[in-house]
Amino acid sequence: MSYTLEPSPSLQNTLTATDLLSRYLAVRNRSKQICAPLQTEDYVVQPVPDVSPPKWHLGHTTWFFETFILKPNIVGYQEFNADYNYVFNSYYESVGVRVVRTNRGNLSRPTVQDIYAYRDYVDAAMENLLRCEVSAELHELLTLGFYHEEQHQELLWTDIKYILGHNPLFPAYAENYPGKNSMPKNDAVFIPIKSGLYQIGHEGEGFCFDNELGRHTVFLPDFEISKALVSNAEYLEFMNDGGYQNFRFWHAEAWDWVKNNEIKAPLYWHYMDGEWFNYTLGGLKPVNLEEPVCHVSFYEAAAFTAWKGMRLPTEFEWEAAAKELNWGSRWEWTNSAYLPYPGFITAPGAIGEYNGKFMVNQMVLRGASDVTSPNHSRETYRNFFQTSARWQYTGIRLAR
Amino acid sequence: MSYTLEPSPSLQNTLTATDLLSRYLAVRNRSKQICAPLQTEDYVVQPVPDVSPPKWHLGHTTWFFETFILKPNIVGYQEFNADYNYVFNSYYESVGVRVVRTNRGNLSRPTVQDIYAYRDYVDAAMENLLRCEVSAELHELLTLGFYHEEQHQELLWTDIKYILGHNPLFPAYAENYPGKNSMPKNDAVFIPIKSGLYQIGHEGEGFCFDNELGRHTVFLPDFEISKALVSNAEYLEFMNDGGYQNFRFWHAEAWDWVKNNEIKAPLYWHYMDGEWFNYTLGGLKPVNLEEPVCHVSFYEAAAFTAWKGMRLPTEFEWEAAAKELNWGSRWEWTNSAYLPYPGFITAPGAIGEYNGKFMVNQMVLRGASDVTSPNHSRETYRNFFQTSARWQYTGIRLAR
Amino acid sequence: MSYTLEPSPSLQNTLTATDLLSRYLAVRNRSKQICAPLQTEDYVVQPVPDVSPPKWHLGHTTWFFETFILKPNIVGYQEFNADYNYVFNSYYESVGVRVVRTNRGNLSRPTVQDIYAYRDYVDAAMENLLRCEVSAELHELLTLGFYHEEQHQELLWTDIKYILGHNPLFPAYAENYPGKNSMPKNDAVFIPIKSGLYQIGHEGEGFCFDNELGRHTVFLPDFEISKALVSNAEYLEFMNDGGYQNFRFWHAEAWDWVKNNEIKAPLYWHYMDGEWFNYTLGGLKPVNLEEPVCHVSFYEAAAFTAWKGMRLPTEFEWEAAAKELNWGSRWEWTNSAYLPYPGFITAPGAIGEYNGKFMVNQMVLRGASDVTSPNHSRETYRNFFQTSARWQYTGIRLAR
Amino acid sequence: MSYTLEPSPSLQNTLTATDLLSRYLAVRNRSKQICAPLQTEDYVVQPVPDVSPPKWHLGHTTWFFETFILKPNIVGYQEFNADYNYVFNSYYESVGVRVVRTNRGNLSRPTVQDIYAYRDYVDAAMENLLRCEVSAELHELLTLGFYHEEQHQELLWTDIKYILGHNPLFPAYAENYPGKNSMPKNDAVFIPIKSGLYQIGHEGEGFCFDNELGRHTVFLPDFEISKALVSNAEYLEFMNDGGYQNFRFWHAEAWDWVKNNEIKAPLYWHYMDGEWFNYTLGGLKPVNLEEPVCHVSFYEAAAFTAWKGMRLPTEFEWEAAAKELNWGSRWEWTNSAYLPYPGFITAPGAIGEYNGKFMVNQMVLRGASDVTSPNHSRETYRNFFQTSARWQYTGIRLAR
Repeated sequence: MSYTLEPSPSLQNTLTATDLLSRYLAVRNRSKQICAPLQTEDYVVQPVPDVSPPKWHLGHTTWFFETFILKPNIVGYQEFNADYNYVFNSYYESVGVRVVRTNRGNLSRPTVQDIYAYRDYVDAAMENLLRCEVSAELHELLTLGFYHEEQHQELLWTDIKYILGHNPLFPAYAENYPGKNSMPKNDAVFIPIKSGLYQIGHEGEGFCFDNELGRHTVFLPDFEISKALVSNAEYLEFMNDGGYQNFRFWHAEAWDWVKNNEIKAPLYWHYMDGEWFNYTLGGLKPVNLEEPVCHVSFYEAAAFTAWKGMRLPTEFEWEAAAKELNWGSRWEWTNSAYLPYPGFITAPGAIGEYNGKFMVNQMVLRGASDVTSPNHSRETYRNFFQTSARWQYTGIRLAR
Repeated sequence: MSYTLEPSPSLQNTLTATDLLSRYLAVRNRSKQICAPLQTEDYVVQPVPDVSPPKWHLGHTTWFFETFILKPNIVGYQEFNADYNYVFNSYYESVGVRVVRTNRGNLSRPTVQDIYAYRDYVDAAMENLLRCEVSAELHELLTLGFYHEEQHQELLWTDIKYILGHNPLFPAYAENYPGKNSMPKNDAVFIPIKSGLYQIGHEGEGFCFDNELGRHTVFLPDFEISKALVSNAEYLEFMNDGGYQNFRFWHAEAWDWVKNNEIKAPLYWHYMDGEWFNYTLGGLKPVNLEEPVCHVSFYEAAAFTAWKGMRLPTEFEWEAAAKELNWGSRWEWTNSAYLPYPGFITAPGAIGEYNGKFMVNQMVLRGASDVTSPNHSRETYRNFFQTSARWQYTGIRLAR
Repeated sequence: MSYTLEPSPSLQNTLTATDLLSRYLAVRNRSKQICAPLQTEDYVVQPVPDVSPPKWHLGHTTWFFETFILKPNIVGYQEFNADYNYVFNSYYESVGVRVVRTNRGNLSRPTVQDIYAYRDYVDAAMENLLRCEVSAELHELLTLGFYHEEQHQELLWTDIKYILGHNPLFPAYAENYPGKNSMPKNDAVFIPIKSGLYQIGHEGEGFCFDNELGRHTVFLPDFEISKALVSNAEYLEFMNDGGYQNFRFWHAEAWDWVKNNEIKAPLYWHYMDGEWFNYTLGGLKPVNLEEPVCHVSFYEAAAFTAWKGMRLPTEFEWEAAAKELNWGSRWEWTNSAYLPYPGFITAPGAIGEYNGKFMVNQMVLRGASDVTSPNHSRETYRNFFQTSARWQYTGIRLAR
Repeated sequence: MSYTLEPSPSLQNTLTATDLLSRYLAVRNRSKQICAPLQTEDYVVQPVPDVSPPKWHLGHTTWFFETFILKPNIVGYQEFNADYNYVFNSYYESVGVRVVRTNRGNLSRPTVQDIYAYRDYVDAAMENLLRCEVSAELHELLTLGFYHEEQHQELLWTDIKYILGHNPLFPAYAENYPGKNSMPKNDAVFIPIKSGLYQIGHEGEGFCFDNELGRHTVFLPDFEISKALVSNAEYLEFMNDGGYQNFRFWHAEAWDWVKNNEIKAPLYWHYMDGEWFNYTLGGLKPVNLEEPVCHVSFYEAAAFTAWKGMRLPTEFEWEAAAKELNWGSRWEWTNSAYLPYPGFITAPGAIGEYNGKFMVNQMVLRGASDVTSPNHSRETYRNFFQTSARWQYTGIRLAR
């Protein structure tokens, strides 16, 4: 799991009450819109532990507003269903016992209809609350709730894709889903960056997560970084050159992963009648050679760069060069482990419970992807995943 | 998995075409009736590999008629969806590749509505077919299809109970589901049976499965068998006497099972505020002491008898005494392993594919249960499960 | 694990004190002789949980005499090392905690020399004890100890074979180990047995284990049974006919076993330069086509008979026909599950602890093998293993 | 596994032929001395995959000289045993198939005596070789062989400790093994380090491994670092304050590790009769409160610092402050992931095969330990382990 929650302590509460309400309604509505094309059954299943059922996302984000905003702030608030705390708590050890992650797909109840009723109930209470002026503290918590739901919106996209893309019938999410995403040809250049001191981390008044804070100085040596992402065509060259058969390109544990899981191509790729297809939200389609490669693990990203005789950038190099890069369609694996910036402090209480608790054995991704929610795309944003994860829109950028 | 399919070779085709059609419609309708109280989401999930999603049962039984009756017998029959063979084939290696059992709960598509449309499509074709006279061979295959679907109806009951009974909200299947099932008090007697030769196995013209055939002679010594099943009250005595804590009552591998799975009571039992409850199709209820104990594994059944200083009957003792027993509400564990009767021969082809292939490391159950389909309750019927299975309506009868 | 311990309650104590002592010394000496060709390192390893290190067998059999004979019968007996109870207790839950079976190969201490010293110490105390007259009860316990150690002697042979036969250097146990074991050619006949009542189980005054007791009547139908065991030549026909590639011959769980473990031949067989070799105690040798096939699981035995269009005998058929069979070089898989005879009662106390506790999910083997200890070869003897076991000298006999 | 092999390309070959020979003999002899107190059986076992049997280390280091020095450099060299390549190859995919790591403890052959004969045979050939002048390339390879064997010497210590310390008899490696290792009291101070640019990585002519190369500039902010390591007394405070029971101090995956493995104390600690003991090479002893805590995982190290309200240093902070620290008795976990320095290049061929292949999901340790070989203790040395590893002499240093 890969989202971070704690907002900047210096977060400025610049929205008026009216703004807050309309922002709230927009965020909440967007989650429903993402799910609009789904059948009821699509909301329920959990093919692998990393993927949560869409109805769980819808319930969990609602539970967040109920638990952290409505209950503490509305006297006499009547919770919708006391059992939902057990069902929709994700991992907050401090908020009590919960359904273990791997069992989310075993639950037929609450039904999708129940959960939409739950959303309506909480939304009504929230609307009431937001008609009055809110305190600065509440304002901050609300902002956090918005970002939290937006992070789950990206997971909704990726989990829906996984659910439909692993169904033997390969149903399209939407027949006319825009699939074309080719890169400008003239991006195939390497940008030289000069050695020196760079400032890394968030600055200023906009929103950010706590893992971006602690702006600090980093010394970088000279390096070059590709303006463009690696394309499917380039990745196919690696495959056709025996990339998945040659241990020399792989980390030791990556090689075990390749062999144990019989990995031969990026996730969603299928070799049929002599041609490579991949599942897209528009259905099964021939691989578009001009698109950036997608759904590769860190292991694959690193192996590709080794084959190429280059390397992945560090997250610091990426941030230093960001303004000159063409980015935004793929989360990009870096060769930086997910670790705290200098001065990182774990916030107290349930909200801050997990700050830092994922900072081990994961790698940082930078950028944003085709399905990233608005407001989640900035140069200092740090995403992170375990090295075998592939169900996100992950890609590769070369450095040397 | 515990059903057998191959019918008696001597099966008499006594039903007229009209009878066949009405029998077909009745069987098919009953499956739908069982599912009528379900929410769409309840059709989808698979909490453990032993349990199949209800929609899978509905599709699979339909696929059986389409594959083994419509396709070979109707010229130009247009199958509903060519991909369904992959989705709804259960284990017939000879009919091609299939979704592995443990993945059935990962499939959101085909939807419940799709599957009901599939049923309607196949039913319409079947009705057409059954308006004409059918051959003896087809008649036999039809009968088999009826029994096949009826076996899945029992699995529908037990799988629905599992799905709802393992949901943290404990939803009732039906609020007013009849739960009372107490035993006559005057049944608590042991019936003595004389030693001698007994005939075991099916005889005559009625339907049976091939594992009941090969009627043969068995010599039995003197024994006594309880007229009644073991009650919840008796089982609670065992529990309160430390039955689950004392290795002496258990088989070696049973003791490992108890410890590894932290087994402390029958399936569906919950200890709450000093009292034992169990989940029933009517919801969570205090344990009814007068009912026969249910949802115990062979391990538990054997441990209970060891604690009692008695034993389970063999399947031959059971059949020899059956007329004098009060049976029919629980499948009853015997101390007989599931093995072929003398002269058992594996039938050729896909239908016969699995005859005998489950005859290893499973124990025979005799009787029938509250949710057994009509026509599946006779003295020679042999059910069978692995020794740890508990999700069926399994009970205990004492012998000595 | 496959030995039984409880002796016949009617065991006659026919040995004099002198006889007892010389019997004791002979049994104890034989264990040492079996191990004589070993290197110290060969005593230590445990390549799989089923196989115990030879030094463990030597210690455990000694612990048996110390725990059940010396400690209760010699006032002031000083145990050799109090920690050995923890190390050498095999599975007696009632005698305290113990090293779990799978960890036996992790123990470098006690050393081989320590264990031989332990044997000498216990032997000296036993010799003292056996110089006097012993009670009937003690006599019985001693007899049990002899049979117990003799059972472990067979395990010593099979475990030593496993340890050396799975070493990449394939060291011989003894270069000149007699490997020739061909069957008489004129044995290839089927013996017809008439239907009727047969008496099954031990009778008379000789020693037997409790699982052989409860001599009882069984009705058998007409059948035929092969005088000879299945040979390597016949088994190779099965292999060359695609026996390991065709699911139709296999039980469902057997087919999973074949695929998951990539089984392609009996244990110890290796295909090298176009020829089949097998490891013998004399080293790696070309497969002798005239020898009875060895080291096959129940799964393989059953699949072979299915390919042949026949079946395995039941243990009752085997016993009824035993006098006419050529047996003794292989333990023979039967199609009988290991279950209690009528009237079987679990003996109280630690010695009787496990009687019956293995009577689930194992199959009976009849006969004896090339490495079976003297006194362990009789028509009523019931051996038993789990269906995937192959490290014993197991073979196949056909019935029809 | 945690050693690195590739030497500095700029390695100066400063040793004369005589020096080389005496260095060779000294290194080789030291391995034997470490093993001198062992019983034959202690050389054989492998209680967990991380731990290799001592005889394997002795064989593998010998195989290294035979494979990379003797075979390519001595015309007509006759290898000791062709099968040893299979047995003693550790992980070099390019040198052929090999015994998988987890099976090393299943091999009774070659025996300890065989392996010492192998050592003698190779040593004799090496002595012959080293009597003449060697090329610069060979000189470098020899140096590498020395460091390689010295790295295995540290593993010999830790693996021997694991083997004896996990034996239920807790045998001492040597009764009089020096156990006292208390820290100077006046070390309990924090050293302030000024922010600025620091040079990190190896420089100059001495030997180093390739992961230390690429000396580069790093900018560090102000920080403070403890002069002393964390003591057992301090760690006991953490334990007594519920450190192992409070999820707040732990990374998410660390908390799973604690619960799944029921971790309650450092490795080798045992609570007996109200007091904490730990196994030392001198046997089981009461925990010495003044010694630095040892045998903790990264998870535990990080949790301790969180409880303390501080953090671990990064590897760069450690190196910048090294001259002022009291270090050398424990490998010290840092909060730096094991990643390449700028400009790191994988060397070609078998020797360089694994350079970089472990640079994922491991953390860097700095310092050296009580059992580190001479020449392996320098300020730039980078050791690395997976986050759950505890069998090395790992400790904790605080930063803030």
